[in-house]
Amino acid sequence: MTEHNGYTWSGQVPLRWRDLDAYGHVYYGQYLTLLDEARVAMLKAALDGADPSFVMARVELDYRRQVVIDDGPLSALVRVERVGRTSLTLHEQLSSRHGATVAEARVVVVLYDLDARRPREVSEAERAALSG
Amino acid sequence: MTEHNGYTWSGQVPLRWRDLDAYGHVYYGQYLTLLDEARVAMLKAALDGADPSFVMARVELDYRRQVVIDDGPLSALVRVERVGRTSLTLHEQLSSRHGATVAEARVVVVLYDLDARRPREVSEAERAALSG
Amino acid sequence: MTEHNGYTWSGQVPLRWRDLDAYGHVYYGQYLTLLDEARVAMLKAALDGADPSFVMARVELDYRRQVVIDDGPLSALVRVERVGRTSLTLHEQLSSRHGATVAEARVVVVLYDLDARRPREVSEAERAALSG
Amino acid sequence: MTEHNGYTWSGQVPLRWRDLDAYGHVYYGQYLTLLDEARVAMLKAALDGADPSFVMARVELDYRRQVVIDDGPLSALVRVERVGRTSLTLHEQLSSRHGATVAEARVVVVLYDLDARRPREVSEAERAALSG
Repeated sequence: MTEHNGYTWSGQVPLRWRDLDAYGHVYYGQYLTLLDEARVAMLKAALDGADPSFVMARVELDYRRQVVIDDGPLSALVRVERVGRTSLTLHEQLSSRHGATVAEARVVVVLYDLDARRPREVSEAERAALSG
Repeated sequence: MTEHNGYTWSGQVPLRWRDLDAYGHVYYGQYLTLLDEARVAMLKAALDGADPSFVMARVELDYRRQVVIDDGPLSALVRVERVGRTSLTLHEQLSSRHGATVAEARVVVVLYDLDARRPREVSEAERAALSG
Repeated sequence: MTEHNGYTWSGQVPLRWRDLDAYGHVYYGQYLTLLDEARVAMLKAALDGADPSFVMARVELDYRRQVVIDDGPLSALVRVERVGRTSLTLHEQLSSRHGATVAEARVVVVLYDLDARRPREVSEAERAALSG
Repeated sequence: MTEHNGYTWSGQVPLRWRDLDAYGHVYYGQYLTLLDEARVAMLKAALDGADPSFVMARVELDYRRQVVIDDGPLSALVRVERVGRTSLTLHEQLSSRHGATVAEARVVVVLYDLDARRPREVSEAERAALSG
């Protein structure tokens, strides 16, 4: 485990009104769409514009605060925690534009060969770029 | 921790075509909407039709298999693992209609007083009903 | 135009809690997902289980009433208004389980060859089945 | 009908990967979420930051082209076509970042008093601002 010394990315994730649910805050499932946007932007930045296909293996998500529409755009911080043989373990943090952390997630994705419909190994170039 | 001896519910969760993403399988974030449907149905069944408001504290979700449209309706199994002071810990399992487990989740929800906008305690009646 | 003498289908469309928006009623865009479910079920019923691919050309949608979660499952009525060379014009009506019409839509879809990535003609068998 | 001489707004609407469906293009229902983002931004700009509540009465939507992820962010053009007693008729156009029109919509919204749960009249200040 090579925690905390991998590639780190920060950026913004705009909210949409439709992200809200009947409680008037961002729906708990919608956080995964927001985390997805941040994760893909991180991967494109780390891999010089390449956008590798992946499937999800596991998500751990701690909800720290409710998010209302005025909290957006959210700030996202994505850190590569571990580069496995076919998997990446990422830590993602979302914050309100006012500064408060609203959610933290650990996400395990498996790189995926869409044509062959099966996992594929992380390339040496990808490993170097993501190990920071 | 009173694992495995709480209330258990099983039922079905229909899929929609819009649950699919550009890979042709159910979007990873959409699982939370499906788990939500199962969880609320379980709570209504356990609590004689009452439908308590809650907010999410934590989700752990393991993706076991891709889900395609022909896998629906999914079967859901929801088990109460722990009843805390204000929180419930639930285990949810989703299976394809062909029988394969497609996802397992542990979800911690906090009962919520929508008017007061704050967590509330689990009542004795709720605790009894959910402890199975 | 061969209005009202085409194939007609009726069925149910379950609601999900996530269909609601911050006003506590079904989101206006979500109606299209519900209409989609009804339309595809109609086509499968009319075409003996075949599920033709199509893309959207036009939607006209009149919102008659707000829909709350207790209005579900909705009843849907889908009627084939016109079978064109490559297009179908369908009329769809959604009603609350209490009986009130909540939305009416006219939808023009174009049958689509996913491999060739272009519109395709309605077959004679499809035309016969959909002309009712 | 006072077509074309009302307030006009232009801006951008970012796409998300989750906007795509199993065909790999933006889901037809998702256009309404995108049109919603543009419409609310227009209203806030026209009304000095005020963000009036409204419900939908009617949508007419012509799909001109499929939208893929590389087409984003979309450009949106929103024009006030008519200011009624309680309703606004808006014309919305979405274009690819490459310049092609991808959808055109006419949308009728009714201003809504959320507390009273009923339509409300357009104020004189709103009418002046939206009449351009």
